[in-house]
Amino acid sequence: MKARKLAIVGATGAVGQEMLKVLEKRDFPYDELVLLASARSAGKKITFRGKEYTVQELTENAFEGIDLALFSAGGSITKKFAPAAVKAGTIVVDNSSAYRMDPEVPLIVPEINPEDAKKHKGILANPNCSTIIMLMAVYPIYKLYGVRRLVVSTYQAASGAGAAAMQELEDQAKAMLAGDQPPTEAFPFPLAFNVFSHNSSLYPENGYNQEEVKMVKESHKILGSSNLKISPTCIRVGTFRAHAESIHLELEKEGDLDEIRKALSSFPGVQLKDDTEKNHFPMPLEVSGQDDVYVGRLRWDLDDSEHKNLQLFCVGDQLLKGAALNAVQIAEIL
Amino acid sequence: MKARKLAIVGATGAVGQEMLKVLEKRDFPYDELVLLASARSAGKKITFRGKEYTVQELTENAFEGIDLALFSAGGSITKKFAPAAVKAGTIVVDNSSAYRMDPEVPLIVPEINPEDAKKHKGILANPNCSTIIMLMAVYPIYKLYGVRRLVVSTYQAASGAGAAAMQELEDQAKAMLAGDQPPTEAFPFPLAFNVFSHNSSLYPENGYNQEEVKMVKESHKILGSSNLKISPTCIRVGTFRAHAESIHLELEKEGDLDEIRKALSSFPGVQLKDDTEKNHFPMPLEVSGQDDVYVGRLRWDLDDSEHKNLQLFCVGDQLLKGAALNAVQIAEIL
Repeated sequence: MKARKLAIVGATGAVGQEMLKVLEKRDFPYDELVLLASARSAGKKITFRGKEYTVQELTENAFEGIDLALFSAGGSITKKFAPAAVKAGTIVVDNSSAYRMDPEVPLIVPEINPEDAKKHKGILANPNCSTIIMLMAVYPIYKLYGVRRLVVSTYQAASGAGAAAMQELEDQAKAMLAGDQPPTEAFPFPLAFNVFSHNSSLYPENGYNQEEVKMVKESHKILGSSNLKISPTCIRVGTFRAHAESIHLELEKEGDLDEIRKALSSFPGVQLKDDTEKNHFPMPLEVSGQDDVYVGRLRWDLDDSEHKNLQLFCVGDQLLKGAALNAVQIAEIL
Repeated sequence: MKARKLAIVGATGAVGQEMLKVLEKRDFPYDELVLLASARSAGKKITFRGKEYTVQELTENAFEGIDLALFSAGGSITKKFAPAAVKAGTIVVDNSSAYRMDPEVPLIVPEINPEDAKKHKGILANPNCSTIIMLMAVYPIYKLYGVRRLVVSTYQAASGAGAAAMQELEDQAKAMLAGDQPPTEAFPFPLAFNVFSHNSSLYPENGYNQEEVKMVKESHKILGSSNLKISPTCIRVGTFRAHAESIHLELEKEGDLDEIRKALSSFPGVQLKDDTEKNHFPMPLEVSGQDDVYVGRLRWDLDDSEHKNLQLFCVGDQLLKGAALNAVQIAEIL
């Protein structure tokens, strides 16, 4: 689909800004571009591809004549304005969690389930960043052997909580290095030189936080199967924009490391980075700004002669494959 | 045992310095104290409990008349000087990995296997920091139900690589915040605002690093059983001195969360910190400088009606319970 008139909703946010860069880098086709944001940001000027745009206020009438809108606003903003967009004939690709688990809304990782995109009724959802990065690393292995159980612990960057959180990490580090109290507004606790359980709220009935439950439910929807048992622990670390994940897989069938390496290397959007000699594996500092998800530390459990228990470590840019890039890729397959 | 004459080997290092603080805090009994270090540090003055000590050079003759020596030097230094100490009649409590897997050397976590200490033949070993912190959190549960499999991902602080590494993390953060290249001498990659696979060297035959293999082998020795399958992934994060660990357990018998909480709360050296309402769990910034290992995020797998798959998150000060405190506790039970 060639979107004649394209809108970015939440254009001034961390993900919105990355979306613009991704559109430029991929030379995404459009005739006209409209940048929308909250009243607070309306009126701001953004220069994009040599042209100056004035950010317009997001209202229910803003979607007249717009063919495609990439939403990167919070869930409640999306819930409020996406129906108006659909009513106006706009196709919505939404980055929030608002519609991800709606059975009428396809949830897409283009390298994994692009065919689901065809079933859309106006809205398509972009999965949670941790879910996308995990599935990119695991899906090539899942396809080969099946996976019975997945235990994952995340090392999540500040960017997942937006531009203000990234700035806060920087301000905190500066304050702490100067011996001052670190500011904590975006996050409940200091993230600089610290690690804490993910700041999304917890379900009292089971002790899981929202981020962890997203990783389970969204993965099942994307894979089209809830057979895979997933045990997630989501943790924030003091990095700026790339998420790392330590993953343990129990395969259904005996695996082969050479075959796994080959499958990962040839999978679009995945890079193998597994240099045991130089102890050089995927790292947030090196993966920041990269489109692909990097995978390394591939190894069997120490006692596993059956080759069914695999460990790996992966890193992906939260703002790119975890958000903006995946959303633009969804728009591309439409 | 009342150590009349006590020596600290490696007194100027990060762990040695913590050992002095622990001795003072616990009012460890001795009549005379000798501080030993490499020729490079010999001659330095250290004031301890109001008295000035001159650091003496570590030589094979330094142990004459010394009853107890707490070693916190590297493995090769220990291998060179511990035999001379034992020959001089000194009991050695060693913090390095040099003798940990020696079948003649007890490997002790005083809350777990104090009875093993009696079997010593002159040398007792202090386990690896990640091993101690993990076992403190897991042992009360292991005792209740047995554990079939343990999957652990670590979030390890700079302190595990010594005082120079802690300083490097600070220098790196300052350099990066100023837009400069971060120095990397203690670590192969920048640790500030980053995460990387543990810097210990890897075994090419299985892809594990030394730190991970220590966690497996030492745990088996301390528990006196190699039935427990352990799948470790050791990762460094940009924190200064407390290690965090995300742990998934497959229990042998059905567990009960109230019983687990009670067992953890009443276990010496463990604190339960599991406030799901305020999303407040163990954090390196809060646990730094604390003697105890903090445990939280206790929950069953989402699909686990059998209550056999448990997740938890724990944090312990790497320099204290992970090193200096545990070593002094070993000396106390002698």
